[in-house]
Amino acid sequence: MDSSDLDNISFLLSGARDAKFAQRPIPKLSPYDVLVAVKKTGICGSDVHFYSEGKMVDNVVTTPFSLGHESAGVISKVGEEVKNVKVGDRVAMEPGESCYRCEDCKAGRYQFCEFCEFASNHPVDGTLQRYFKLPTDMVYKLPDNITLEEGALVEPLSVAVHTVSTLAQLRANQKVAVFGAGPIGLACMAVSRALGASRIIAIDIVPSRLEFAKGYVGADTFLPPRVEDGESKVQYSRRVVKLMSSTLGIEERGVNGIDLVVDATGAETCAQMAIFLAKEGGKFIQVGFGAQEVILPITLLLTKELTVRGSWRYGPGDYELAIALIASGKVDMKPLVTHRFKFQDAIDAFEATRKGMSEDGRSVIKTIISGPDVLPEEH
Amino acid sequence: MDSSDLDNISFLLSGARDAKFAQRPIPKLSPYDVLVAVKKTGICGSDVHFYSEGKMVDNVVTTPFSLGHESAGVISKVGEEVKNVKVGDRVAMEPGESCYRCEDCKAGRYQFCEFCEFASNHPVDGTLQRYFKLPTDMVYKLPDNITLEEGALVEPLSVAVHTVSTLAQLRANQKVAVFGAGPIGLACMAVSRALGASRIIAIDIVPSRLEFAKGYVGADTFLPPRVEDGESKVQYSRRVVKLMSSTLGIEERGVNGIDLVVDATGAETCAQMAIFLAKEGGKFIQVGFGAQEVILPITLLLTKELTVRGSWRYGPGDYELAIALIASGKVDMKPLVTHRFKFQDAIDAFEATRKGMSEDGRSVIKTIISGPDVLPEEH
Amino acid sequence: MDSSDLDNISFLLSGARDAKFAQRPIPKLSPYDVLVAVKKTGICGSDVHFYSEGKMVDNVVTTPFSLGHESAGVISKVGEEVKNVKVGDRVAMEPGESCYRCEDCKAGRYQFCEFCEFASNHPVDGTLQRYFKLPTDMVYKLPDNITLEEGALVEPLSVAVHTVSTLAQLRANQKVAVFGAGPIGLACMAVSRALGASRIIAIDIVPSRLEFAKGYVGADTFLPPRVEDGESKVQYSRRVVKLMSSTLGIEERGVNGIDLVVDATGAETCAQMAIFLAKEGGKFIQVGFGAQEVILPITLLLTKELTVRGSWRYGPGDYELAIALIASGKVDMKPLVTHRFKFQDAIDAFEATRKGMSEDGRSVIKTIISGPDVLPEEH
Amino acid sequence: MDSSDLDNISFLLSGARDAKFAQRPIPKLSPYDVLVAVKKTGICGSDVHFYSEGKMVDNVVTTPFSLGHESAGVISKVGEEVKNVKVGDRVAMEPGESCYRCEDCKAGRYQFCEFCEFASNHPVDGTLQRYFKLPTDMVYKLPDNITLEEGALVEPLSVAVHTVSTLAQLRANQKVAVFGAGPIGLACMAVSRALGASRIIAIDIVPSRLEFAKGYVGADTFLPPRVEDGESKVQYSRRVVKLMSSTLGIEERGVNGIDLVVDATGAETCAQMAIFLAKEGGKFIQVGFGAQEVILPITLLLTKELTVRGSWRYGPGDYELAIALIASGKVDMKPLVTHRFKFQDAIDAFEATRKGMSEDGRSVIKTIISGPDVLPEEH
Repeated sequence: MDSSDLDNISFLLSGARDAKFAQRPIPKLSPYDVLVAVKKTGICGSDVHFYSEGKMVDNVVTTPFSLGHESAGVISKVGEEVKNVKVGDRVAMEPGESCYRCEDCKAGRYQFCEFCEFASNHPVDGTLQRYFKLPTDMVYKLPDNITLEEGALVEPLSVAVHTVSTLAQLRANQKVAVFGAGPIGLACMAVSRALGASRIIAIDIVPSRLEFAKGYVGADTFLPPRVEDGESKVQYSRRVVKLMSSTLGIEERGVNGIDLVVDATGAETCAQMAIFLAKEGGKFIQVGFGAQEVILPITLLLTKELTVRGSWRYGPGDYELAIALIASGKVDMKPLVTHRFKFQDAIDAFEATRKGMSEDGRSVIKTIISGPDVLPEEH
Repeated sequence: MDSSDLDNISFLLSGARDAKFAQRPIPKLSPYDVLVAVKKTGICGSDVHFYSEGKMVDNVVTTPFSLGHESAGVISKVGEEVKNVKVGDRVAMEPGESCYRCEDCKAGRYQFCEFCEFASNHPVDGTLQRYFKLPTDMVYKLPDNITLEEGALVEPLSVAVHTVSTLAQLRANQKVAVFGAGPIGLACMAVSRALGASRIIAIDIVPSRLEFAKGYVGADTFLPPRVEDGESKVQYSRRVVKLMSSTLGIEERGVNGIDLVVDATGAETCAQMAIFLAKEGGKFIQVGFGAQEVILPITLLLTKELTVRGSWRYGPGDYELAIALIASGKVDMKPLVTHRFKFQDAIDAFEATRKGMSEDGRSVIKTIISGPDVLPEEH
Repeated sequence: MDSSDLDNISFLLSGARDAKFAQRPIPKLSPYDVLVAVKKTGICGSDVHFYSEGKMVDNVVTTPFSLGHESAGVISKVGEEVKNVKVGDRVAMEPGESCYRCEDCKAGRYQFCEFCEFASNHPVDGTLQRYFKLPTDMVYKLPDNITLEEGALVEPLSVAVHTVSTLAQLRANQKVAVFGAGPIGLACMAVSRALGASRIIAIDIVPSRLEFAKGYVGADTFLPPRVEDGESKVQYSRRVVKLMSSTLGIEERGVNGIDLVVDATGAETCAQMAIFLAKEGGKFIQVGFGAQEVILPITLLLTKELTVRGSWRYGPGDYELAIALIASGKVDMKPLVTHRFKFQDAIDAFEATRKGMSEDGRSVIKTIISGPDVLPEEH
Repeated sequence: MDSSDLDNISFLLSGARDAKFAQRPIPKLSPYDVLVAVKKTGICGSDVHFYSEGKMVDNVVTTPFSLGHESAGVISKVGEEVKNVKVGDRVAMEPGESCYRCEDCKAGRYQFCEFCEFASNHPVDGTLQRYFKLPTDMVYKLPDNITLEEGALVEPLSVAVHTVSTLAQLRANQKVAVFGAGPIGLACMAVSRALGASRIIAIDIVPSRLEFAKGYVGADTFLPPRVEDGESKVQYSRRVVKLMSSTLGIEERGVNGIDLVVDATGAETCAQMAIFLAKEGGKFIQVGFGAQEVILPITLLLTKELTVRGSWRYGPGDYELAIALIASGKVDMKPLVTHRFKFQDAIDAFEATRKGMSEDGRSVIKTIISGPDVLPEEH
């Protein structure tokens, strides 16, 4: 590596749709750090929120920072104590640095570490830079049969692994319904399939996404009808679940019931439908961000003894399992990538993702931005 | 026992506040059934709903049926295959008959059995009768140091055992907050204390109930302030939890956080406060019936990875643990009984419980109705 | 069905290698019973023990009884309360009748029921009869794409499901080693593969069995060397595991360690090797019967915090999962059937299985005996 | 603190019963380290092994090193990043330094860290020094109502917490049997009592220890009879358990069965008896070191579906719970301290502990050695 300390070109956001490129210093490494030359970065929904609105929920952009946290790259430099990787290794990047010493870190729940610095969570810089520093235990060597682009997709797949495997503990032959056929929803379906789910039902309001889910994991699909005049959201949700149940042969308990419902949309009606849909004693995991407050039929949650759980990022073992699922061919993330941009075209990438469609009219599932220095053969 | 087949005096409800006494046939026993002479019955909130409104949620009283399901009595007759009890045994009564053969029954989740006939769940008759038939595995011999009145309270205590021990799996040194200091809330506090909780916080809007909770289990107490003008329920709940946290030294994570929140009220703001109050990775169990639909801050549920679970009746092992907790002195249910009535005064008992106060102005926690044939010394 | 009450031809064992055919009464049905016309029965190791030695461990044959418990058949008659199946249905048979009312049955652990009558466990009759009576919740309707022969193999597959899924809770990407490539060992490998194991190591002393395991589930294989002069069993086991580890790249912890070891042999050295082989914090499940007492390196069990568990029969959900695994094609039991006999040739079937080889020199994995009335097309 | 870099007087062992005092350098602190002035140290069985035999299992003393790892002290100096404690704080010391970055550390299983440096595990120095360095997250501030001596006993209590709470997950009303009424066995009994065990059975071959257990936690006690002529160990163990069961009313399953057996002795017959004694589906945890290889009745382990687990040191949350149990009065460790020595008399302390009896004939349970600088009032 031959570069001055300042040669760290970055894609910086200063406010809503206010982004530019600028140099940043190359981070200094502590003995357990590595410097990664970032090669591929996927755009996440939270990146789009920051880009479009200049904020993410309560977190308002006040100083320029770089976006991006779904990344893979090549080790460019290593601290003196680093043993698990060496310069030149291709790695998936887990984009956070926790403290290692708090009660949560020590108990294997580092996603709760209150001192965690998570990439692209303003004001912490994200990975849309030439170089990004990480603790060496947060990079994972990619097997030879995984491309750097797939390496970038390990991050969203890990969200799905955390949701479906780690938290929901899905078992073979269980039945799963997933609201939302975007990247996270599709990844949850793919993990469910890999873990042996006997039925996957995809629910989305965009027919083409349902078609994709059907082809991708063999999902049964359901397109919810429109809201009727004067119908409350809860009334609507109850009606839709009745319709879905009769159409698809879903029962309230037993072998034809839904063991696990995942909501990857964050829409209020989806959370409601999840509770109407899950079988007695079943599970509902909320992984999609959206409505901050929703009306839920809590009496039903009680009488069915449902377990509702929030899924937050990922923790120990999730990246490892995600990589193994790709490497073994049990999950294929490649079909999710619909759009690719060069680093210098990052603004175009964000605009297309924001609109959900590129200028040629193709729908966006996942957009990948290459690092500034990526070579043609580096996929 | 010398009685005609019809000599089964019963307290029958026909509609809202429309009750009377009438004879019913004494049930026939199958080989695995027992006939219990009912001696003590506690009035449950659901009984009061039926009595006051002639319905419980969607279940409207259309034919006369007897109320009551918190009962203890004496074995009066046994089927030919019965081995675990004999005539004269004092027993706590688990008031349901499930099918034993469905997927749920066989897997140890008989509370979900769709064929379960649960006492006093209209139109199934309850226990406010002279005699009540049960499968023999649904009666539990009382140790000598437990009174029949305590035996009747095994039912509500089992609800608390199911909530705090079986579902929440509370561990020693955890911290618990309970909304509602009525019979179920207090029983949840008592079980938490017995399982080694290091802190119990009782929240209620009635100061005298908080005083009781303080004396009963050493609870820290919190009286929520009034709603302010123009404040939404969620805003109110957030504000109250901030106040509660600063007053009582509660933190968002770590050793000063709340591991388990139980809502025994069913009030919308309590469910909201539960989610604001629980620590990261914590649990919230809904055991109280009330508002069918509530607005919940679901984004917070997600980012804190909370587990929310409904608690429905009780299942394998809950009655056994409840009896053991009483017998060992770890839980004392006696202080909860504030009012006692004879069988012939059952209407007075329901009126007092409905109003929450007897004619002499004393607040009701738990009302007990003696069976028609109880002797003075049978407490 | 047109048959006298006595027309229930049975294969009866009276002592070691002392078997004959005789009529038995057709069982009477209670309201929840079904009568199954037995069509296919696999021979289990315990059947062979009884046949060869006239006893199984301490259980000595004192009265004639019929062998067999791995069976499928066709419903011939149903009790008046039976709803889940009807005459003519093809079913897998779970060959035990538990009491439904003891603490274990109610808690979902019916395999521990002390009143369980388990087929072919002397003196309880087994399924090598024309008709066999079962509680209706112990028969499972076979999907159309499962043959009756596969239906008979649901029983040994359920033993593997209980071991690998229910007890060991194997997760995707874990690594498994199985001692013994007979029917149960192979079924454990097949379940491991279906649940997503990333590596399966088969260990056996018969090279042809290892070859089979390699072709069947893609197992890595290991043929243990001979014992050396003066070497104790523990010394031998330690040496073999060192050799196996270096040959196959197994480490003591981390991603190249063995998460789960299953012993399906019952041999002392296999249990020893299991403890040397399992990674830190790993699991070892003993499912094979054999040596009653074995020398185990318990200090190593302690310092590695291993979990050792015995696997006994099967419980709630195991038959359902076994059937689903076959029906979905995730497990193929058909290749295990190497030998087939008619009912009237049952003695030949037992002799071949006892010797491990038929007269034509082919090795036995699993022997199937057809029911007396099976038609040529009923496979 | 006024001391030269070399002023770190240490009790150093060079071989079997070959110990002396010598100066060692005071350790340098990294930013997250603390230096503790060691005030109280308990002698552990492993210390005695090293002292008596110059080795512990395979670990032979080849260079002088200090013994001791059950310690409490006062913070003497802190690294620049230390926030949880300050100079002068009284702390319990968790005596290991793991790597924080391996798969085990990150998953909350730091007791398995292969890079862990554990105090007094030759050649790593132990705590019998004036000063001892630890990562700051490995010291735990003592509540005011816990003495330094109790602080030293947090270590053995954490072993019991790890065994009974973390691994065995003991629940209220369960029944426990503990082999060995020495410090670890007694601590396991005390934790069982604190977690709500309804019965504790202490087994030991020394009557006075049983008397102590009876007074300490209300244990039922059992003194095994002598081995009879010609009786194998397994025969002996089976006979003793039969006798114990009939004497104490223990059954093979159900409410009068033993849910958890802990062996704190390491004796072969105790492990055997554990397997005969545990109820169907029960647990047996091995925490005591001793015989490296033992004969176990594995068929019984299988048919009872026992779970056998090794308990190794302690992990996340164990120290916190141990301190909370002492601080809340639920566990009292003080009665276990039978002998106290000054630092300069450490050899006498080891000699007495080795013999199990001091010169005045009193039996040793736990010996405490004060730090070189302890003041009279520092208990």
